Amino acid sequence: MILDGKAVSKKILDNLKVKVGNLSKQPHLVVILVGNNPASQIYVKNKKLAAENIGIKSTIIELDSQIKETELLNKIEQLNNDSDVTGILVQLPLPAHIDKNKIVTAISPKKDVDGFTPENVGRLAIGLEPYFYPATPQGIIMLLDEYNIPIEGADTVIIGRSNIVGKPMAQMLLRRNATVTICHSYTKNIESKIKTADIIISAVGKKIVRCKMVNNNSVIVDVGIFRDSNGKLTGDVDFDFVSPSVKYISPVPGGVGPMTIASLMYNASKVYDR
Amino acid sequence: MILDGKAVSKKILDNLKVKVGNLSKQPHLVVILVGNNPASQIYVKNKKLAAENIGIKSTIIELDSQIKETELLNKIEQLNNDSDVTGILVQLPLPAHIDKNKIVTAISPKKDVDGFTPENVGRLAIGLEPYFYPATPQGIIMLLDEYNIPIEGADTVIIGRSNIVGKPMAQMLLRRNATVTICHSYTKNIESKIKTADIIISAVGKKIVRCKMVNNNSVIVDVGIFRDSNGKLTGDVDFDFVSPSVKYISPVPGGVGPMTIASLMYNASKVYDR
Repeated sequence: MILDGKAVSKKILDNLKVKVGNLSKQPHLVVILVGNNPASQIYVKNKKLAAENIGIKSTIIELDSQIKETELLNKIEQLNNDSDVTGILVQLPLPAHIDKNKIVTAISPKKDVDGFTPENVGRLAIGLEPYFYPATPQGIIMLLDEYNIPIEGADTVIIGRSNIVGKPMAQMLLRRNATVTICHSYTKNIESKIKTADIIISAVGKKIVRCKMVNNNSVIVDVGIFRDSNGKLTGDVDFDFVSPSVKYISPVPGGVGPMTIASLMYNASKVYDR
Repeated sequence: MILDGKAVSKKILDNLKVKVGNLSKQPHLVVILVGNNPASQIYVKNKKLAAENIGIKSTIIELDSQIKETELLNKIEQLNNDSDVTGILVQLPLPAHIDKNKIVTAISPKKDVDGFTPENVGRLAIGLEPYFYPATPQGIIMLLDEYNIPIEGADTVIIGRSNIVGKPMAQMLLRRNATVTICHSYTKNIESKIKTADIIISAVGKKIVRCKMVNNNSVIVDVGIFRDSNGKLTGDVDFDFVSPSVKYISPVPGGVGPMTIASLMYNASKVYDR
């Protein structure tokens, strides 16, 4: 059975549109784009469109790739103090001369719609409510919940340990009382770990989950997205061979991608007092 | 083979004594004790003694169990701003009328020798260097390293997901490229997970690791410490039956306990500029 991220995302966004329409204060998302990376330009434009579609005010601030770190920090400080701005998102990657961690850390935790600041990450890790959960893991939980897939007590395997997906995913699954195994490039016998898991979340960016590794009850969530040697958009999972052998699987495209957008918009629709 | 935490701890403390003697500024650890919990009184006294033994200045601030939360917060703020104080530790548990998270969060991350503030937890989680690592997991890594037990690529199982041990342990093992499985009360088939692991770290507080669950190459780290029905101090592991069947095992007492003290003193000997 297909985990239809596109359909679930649409449903969430429709609900958010109603919610935003009823807010006493219109949310305002500011997206900062440094330089002219073509992929980043598309992502930023899509985020702006998604926000506007559900009634969130949205501004893109385009900055020169040569901008000094201190200037960017000043810009963020100004947005932190601007009571009209409710969400700030710095599109990654940043140019090499800018310290990404310094920039992310500078965003007010109450406007950090990506959920990447140390305070929000730390709150997630110690069991406090963060102001924002990271978009991709939150979107995956929303997708599993929509299909009533049990998380409590499930054996879950996460492949990949990035700050954006793998590590926060582990925290969020733990909160829901799953048993969590985090695998990565140093993991041995990964096949047997995948084979015995109930839920497998793969976020690697290369073909890794093959038919022989899964079982009839596996739930497969494919976070990877890249172009194969024929230029076709694909994920970490060998979809054609794996999909007939498992219980649930998310496609690429149309699975985690749209859920990440819905989840980000869920965050962008939150308004905190300063 | 026994992981002799007592001996390793002594070695670390001896080295720290030399290090502290050579510092240009004497570290000063302030331990705050609220109320008169007898166990806490002993812990606090032991920490003070351990600090003084290696040349760290140490102060215990005893506060009435009825103290208001705001008064305690003011006290911490005062210590944060006192340039003579390099480390602040609030002994847990706190009385029920005080919000533990609020108190811990108030400690300056650069004086947070327990490594419990959201900023330090968040830094650990996103791969930045925290100012302080949590004492118990850091002590366990020190113990494994002392015996040259390979961590990279090892299958590790952590039993228990507390903020003090389980969760930061997972982060620290991931940093060292271990594969990490986090188990807890909702985990199914825990025997098979323990059986196939290279390193098992148990932090539950009840007898859970039995002889039939281990293998000849298992490394067992026992964090649990409690009194059995005969009043004898014991750990999570059925030591008498397990120890002949594994490669390495830490005893209780004399294993993780002394390592936690050595690790805390390692933290307390760090001096940050404000």
